Amino acid sequence: MAFKTDIEIARAAQKKPIQEIGAKLGIPTEALLPYGHDKAKVGQEFITSLKDRPDGKLILVTAINPTPAGEGKTTTTVGLGDGLNRIGKKAAVCIREASLGPNFGMKGGAAGGGYAQVVPMEDMNLHFTGDFHAITSAHNLLSAMIDNHIYWGNSLGIDERRVTWRRVMDMNDRALRDVVVSLGGVANGFPRQTGFDITVASEVMAILCLASDLADLERRLGDMIVAYTRDKAPIYCRDLKADGAMTVLLKDAMQPNLVQTLENNPAFVHGGPFANIAHGCNSVIATRTALKLADYVVTEAGFGADLGAEKFMNIKCRKAGLAPAAVVIVATVRAMKMNGGVAKADLGAENVAAVKAGCANLGRHIENVAGFGVPVVVGINHFAGDTEAEIAAVKDYVAALGSEAILCRHWAEGGAGIEELARRVAELADGGGAAFKTLYPDEMGLMEKIETIATRIYRAGSVTADAGVRAQLKAWEEAGYGHLPVCMAKTQYSFSTDPNLRGAPEGHVIPVREVRLSAGAGFVVAICGEIMTMPGLPRVPASETIRLNAAGLIEGLF
Amino acid sequence: MAFKTDIEIARAAQKKPIQEIGAKLGIPTEALLPYGHDKAKVGQEFITSLKDRPDGKLILVTAINPTPAGEGKTTTTVGLGDGLNRIGKKAAVCIREASLGPNFGMKGGAAGGGYAQVVPMEDMNLHFTGDFHAITSAHNLLSAMIDNHIYWGNSLGIDERRVTWRRVMDMNDRALRDVVVSLGGVANGFPRQTGFDITVASEVMAILCLASDLADLERRLGDMIVAYTRDKAPIYCRDLKADGAMTVLLKDAMQPNLVQTLENNPAFVHGGPFANIAHGCNSVIATRTALKLADYVVTEAGFGADLGAEKFMNIKCRKAGLAPAAVVIVATVRAMKMNGGVAKADLGAENVAAVKAGCANLGRHIENVAGFGVPVVVGINHFAGDTEAEIAAVKDYVAALGSEAILCRHWAEGGAGIEELARRVAELADGGGAAFKTLYPDEMGLMEKIETIATRIYRAGSVTADAGVRAQLKAWEEAGYGHLPVCMAKTQYSFSTDPNLRGAPEGHVIPVREVRLSAGAGFVVAICGEIMTMPGLPRVPASETIRLNAAGLIEGLF
Repeated sequence: MAFKTDIEIARAAQKKPIQEIGAKLGIPTEALLPYGHDKAKVGQEFITSLKDRPDGKLILVTAINPTPAGEGKTTTTVGLGDGLNRIGKKAAVCIREASLGPNFGMKGGAAGGGYAQVVPMEDMNLHFTGDFHAITSAHNLLSAMIDNHIYWGNSLGIDERRVTWRRVMDMNDRALRDVVVSLGGVANGFPRQTGFDITVASEVMAILCLASDLADLERRLGDMIVAYTRDKAPIYCRDLKADGAMTVLLKDAMQPNLVQTLENNPAFVHGGPFANIAHGCNSVIATRTALKLADYVVTEAGFGADLGAEKFMNIKCRKAGLAPAAVVIVATVRAMKMNGGVAKADLGAENVAAVKAGCANLGRHIENVAGFGVPVVVGINHFAGDTEAEIAAVKDYVAALGSEAILCRHWAEGGAGIEELARRVAELADGGGAAFKTLYPDEMGLMEKIETIATRIYRAGSVTADAGVRAQLKAWEEAGYGHLPVCMAKTQYSFSTDPNLRGAPEGHVIPVREVRLSAGAGFVVAICGEIMTMPGLPRVPASETIRLNAAGLIEGLF
Repeated sequence: MAFKTDIEIARAAQKKPIQEIGAKLGIPTEALLPYGHDKAKVGQEFITSLKDRPDGKLILVTAINPTPAGEGKTTTTVGLGDGLNRIGKKAAVCIREASLGPNFGMKGGAAGGGYAQVVPMEDMNLHFTGDFHAITSAHNLLSAMIDNHIYWGNSLGIDERRVTWRRVMDMNDRALRDVVVSLGGVANGFPRQTGFDITVASEVMAILCLASDLADLERRLGDMIVAYTRDKAPIYCRDLKADGAMTVLLKDAMQPNLVQTLENNPAFVHGGPFANIAHGCNSVIATRTALKLADYVVTEAGFGADLGAEKFMNIKCRKAGLAPAAVVIVATVRAMKMNGGVAKADLGAENVAAVKAGCANLGRHIENVAGFGVPVVVGINHFAGDTEAEIAAVKDYVAALGSEAILCRHWAEGGAGIEELARRVAELADGGGAAFKTLYPDEMGLMEKIETIATRIYRAGSVTADAGVRAQLKAWEEAGYGHLPVCMAKTQYSFSTDPNLRGAPEGHVIPVREVRLSAGAGFVVAICGEIMTMPGLPRVPASETIRLNAAGLIEGLF
């Protein structure tokens, strides 16, 4: 087979009209709100009508800690969906939407890769159905209303130094990280220091992805804390009366987007919160809708299983009442080698010893995920240079743990290359072996929740936090937020907070530098390291070469 | 007939699928890119295929100077389109898109009113097809690339004090008018003072509305001047290599949007530049497409005829090679009374003398428009309280000028109420009486162009400008921009620069305070008064009461 790039493959896709894709799931044409011929939103009325139907089986695709070698988590999610359809199952995939801004820095990404992709790829890397623009508008309306309230007399007594609500833009723009607004005199308000985050870091994004419907969305938006008074009393979004208008701005964005895989199977692509300061999963409404319509729903969570699967279980599933029936952990021979100490430049050479050494990282994730009471299977995402001996080393290692690793060739072969994994996943999901449980109960104290994740998932020896952080957590418990889950913001590259520490470290220290309350989303964020919420552009941004060519095709974006 | 609000009427509309509306103009279904069931973009390939077809007749709807009494220019545009269709003509209307931000300050507007509206009204006041979001993204990508260029070494030698390119947001947010960006130290760049405008004030908006196709769009974007060096040499968008990526972001936004009137006639709603610092007309591509598909195309221009029609003729028609076949000037009895000195509170009482006195404003506009070589007819937009004697006074006044005023009841009766005007307009357009000419030739000097508009249209006695302004105009002439038309930014409420001076003043002074070069859009802006490019929210913004009600309908937006 001649080598083609992801975009070449995507452009060659024989897409079907989106109404045909919807019909595969029993969605009537009139319940689809089309955006062009290959994208549609599923109507709320139809979604509501499904509520008494039984749910299909939910399958989470997660991964080892990411390495520069690449894992292919989305690729495997999409491939597994196609594989399940190929073996005669009614399956859909649920993945996140891409953020526009970063595509102008580094090249944009496919949704999946090779012959396991979701299309239309160009649209998904650009404005798509406008969801992120709606979130930007809703977020910034609240920002404008806060400064407007202060301007017109500040009857709520907002302390201008304690406005925690910033503004957002879906753009990599470091100049906006830290700004002073309202300069220019009396007509423009009271100058104060603030900044912009990228849209995906907005609490509005996290809320959209956790809300069950528009009423829940509005309630959660109202619950957001946006500022404090001089006495440190919280000011809620509701106090500004912004929640209703924000909901109106988000009413279409709340409806899940339906697209298709290269093999014309249904894919829901909806929402895309940060995976560090937020929970990194596609929307609850998309997942729930897919579960009503398909027998198997394959979804993924951001980063490796230590962050992604943990948040999927402890935040998304807990809050949405979901329970996964099976989990796939994606690993690659190359990534095992890197975990085993091999540099990226040397990945081409067979190195079974390094693979074996690196498997500790995979083993730790298997053990962690199994701890949630869900059957686990490993999917080895095949790369052309993998040797038989290396693949066998991974399989043997996983088998020794009582699990199973299955080689998958979906990147090169599409659904046909992942049938074995699809069969095994269906067996596991149908086998009733899952007895899902979260890692900690709601009643546990906030600091103890952090410590539980740190010691049981990261295998840290201890958690450090200064008195201020501990006092803040106590204060939130007293204010009635103690029941919330915690959302860990830490490097995705290691179980520790040192991104260079691969493998399966233990006994390390997790320092909690700062905690934040996302009262509307419904979690407490524990920040364990530097977290960037507004990226910058590189020296030579991709945007310098992005253009339409003479044939009207986009160049440079991929 | 029971009184219904605009939104009640709009919601009760019996909308047809947008494919049926397209079919009325001969647009095949596959050439329509649907956005839901009642909005679509017209595909570029189809538009290109029309290029050898003959053009229909272009009819401009303009108005007297706006007063608080209301004129109903858009209402008349929409009504006239319906009226033409009713009398058996193949007609389409072309109007502007609404800006999102201002709807959260004051209540949003219908596109038209009463029984002469374009629908879906809610969508048109919210995200619509995402065009303005795309413009915001394209504009701010360039902003980010400018600061990024400076950050990484500034090889172009941009003077940070002379970056003229600001950022935009489609929001009324006075706190963003004047800001300092890039605070926070080395990692965030070089602090400098700048600000945000509302999206409709972006030069990108003006360009999108003047560009003939994507290639022309890209060229114009590249031509924009974004900054100067310390030696005052211009830095172009092209120098930053942002034009290609901006074009990619705008590729869908460039395609005209098709919607429908309440009477299921086709309406193109595309683009919406400011009518002061820009030319205030819907897009050239929409107008041209409509002209290829319909026999009569009814369009409008922002504000009264002194600003709107003048710019339509001297900027849009000149640059796009368009020629109007007839012009309708909208007037109301109430507005004539206000021009005749009656206060808004006293408009209820009959006052024929005031109507007669106020007609001077209308007369001036008739004379001005006739000067462009185009036949003129006046449409009196009927209000319930108008008396026979008042209406007769307007008709007599206009007849004495050798023109004609026709009473129109489209607000209350839809197309049926405006058949007489429709018949007359069709006669005028078909009569071949038009010999369109612009007010000034390209070769005229920039200052002389300003003086020509001021003396011939505004009937000013003189134009004042300080030496700096005159030197700047000279410098632009020397730099090759002397052939550009001028775009006057002045109050819309008077022929003068005093918004309280109604009627038909003459001999006043027009002070040019500042000039700006929109090198990509292709005009020189002459600013004659305070121009606000970022509105603020009022004390009690509409957003405080906007919400979805229990039935899922939007409340408070209209």
